[in-house]
Amino acid sequence: MDSSEKIYSGKTKDLYLLPNANILLVFKDDVTGTDGVIDPGANTVIGQVAGKGRKSLAMTDYFFKRLHAAQISTHLVNVDLEQGTMEVRRAEPLGKDISGAGGLEFVCRTRPWGSFSRRYQQYIRDPQQSLDYLVEITVKDDERGDPLINDDTIVALGLVSPTHLAEAKDITRRVCRIVEADLSSKGLMLIDMKIEIGLVEGKVVVIDEISADAMRVMDDAGNVLEHSMVHETLIG
Amino acid sequence: MDSSEKIYSGKTKDLYLLPNANILLVFKDDVTGTDGVIDPGANTVIGQVAGKGRKSLAMTDYFFKRLHAAQISTHLVNVDLEQGTMEVRRAEPLGKDISGAGGLEFVCRTRPWGSFSRRYQQYIRDPQQSLDYLVEITVKDDERGDPLINDDTIVALGLVSPTHLAEAKDITRRVCRIVEADLSSKGLMLIDMKIEIGLVEGKVVVIDEISADAMRVMDDAGNVLEHSMVHETLIG
Repeated sequence: MDSSEKIYSGKTKDLYLLPNANILLVFKDDVTGTDGVIDPGANTVIGQVAGKGRKSLAMTDYFFKRLHAAQISTHLVNVDLEQGTMEVRRAEPLGKDISGAGGLEFVCRTRPWGSFSRRYQQYIRDPQQSLDYLVEITVKDDERGDPLINDDTIVALGLVSPTHLAEAKDITRRVCRIVEADLSSKGLMLIDMKIEIGLVEGKVVVIDEISADAMRVMDDAGNVLEHSMVHETLIG
Repeated sequence: MDSSEKIYSGKTKDLYLLPNANILLVFKDDVTGTDGVIDPGANTVIGQVAGKGRKSLAMTDYFFKRLHAAQISTHLVNVDLEQGTMEVRRAEPLGKDISGAGGLEFVCRTRPWGSFSRRYQQYIRDPQQSLDYLVEITVKDDERGDPLINDDTIVALGLVSPTHLAEAKDITRRVCRIVEADLSSKGLMLIDMKIEIGLVEGKVVVIDEISADAMRVMDDAGNVLEHSMVHETLIG
């Protein structure tokens, strides 16, 4: 990394610009949480868990390759599991904020759970119902708790074109089905997951990572699994 | 009202079932607010303002007749301004909650303002930009602050069919344009407004009321007007 320039230090990853204009993602062991409890959805780093970065990287590598096999593009170039790094094409995240940071997060739900169930509890007739790969989109904004945004607003604010938005939602649902099928083959059920999407040379691709941190998984006894358990079951 | 049965007592209206199976809405002088300050968006009644009920009724009568002229249906049968009552067809509000109450509220925005500006402040490049009659939909739920809901979720939860939802959004935009044009002819600008929509014999119609309480209006000096000022300018 001698000739690389650090361009961003995130909560769980550092980014370096490589001489070939690609980006090197360095996965860190930092974990986020609230009041000392680990919560990947939280916005504050509360400590480190040894080996956590490499696990997230291995799982991202595992799933990104599954996506490629299904003709879904990602920004992945190559992974160095030893070093805990992933080289990626430089992507423009969909829906950047006015400072050039932020972006949209694409949530896919197979059934009501968590914040969704709390938000719409008066309107959910059957808590067991299928949500048929429902996509919800939020804007990254730590201070305001990543607010939900609807499709029309995304277009009205000029964040994403209608065409790219439709493609991104379609990709989100396809990724969700692939991850769900994979977990299902191991006796686990996907409840919901979150991905990020960006443009590489005008093409809509999956970016960042797909790790246990960004999915909620249940075993056949109905228990929601710890993220480390999901890692272990999937990639050992 | 001797032979009528009171079927619901709302924050600003009481509902009676009439012998002909229609509903009689009795507009009350109750106002909602927070910490003693009147706010039509709030969910607690904090007092009365004499004449407020009749004003809301007169304005609803005024706008519902404008909608009828534009071939947009409402549930209105007739208005008795003296009595402060409105007879309406019995309608099924779109998107009722599990208790049979609640429903969806359709917000139409011509520009960023209020909760919208706060929610997406990191993503609004130009605070003066046109939002081109953007529709946002919320579910009525006092306890949870009427959360935003996206189109896909409305359909996934079985609250409204895709066809009725598309019609309701189209009606919302058309109503917004009519109200905007009306205000504009009096030198006022509509920023945003909120309506409710329901089904009468399977047909999508505007229900409840269209009053100054459910719209944000600006004068040409850029001041947001008190609701009573909007009433006065429009209907005296």
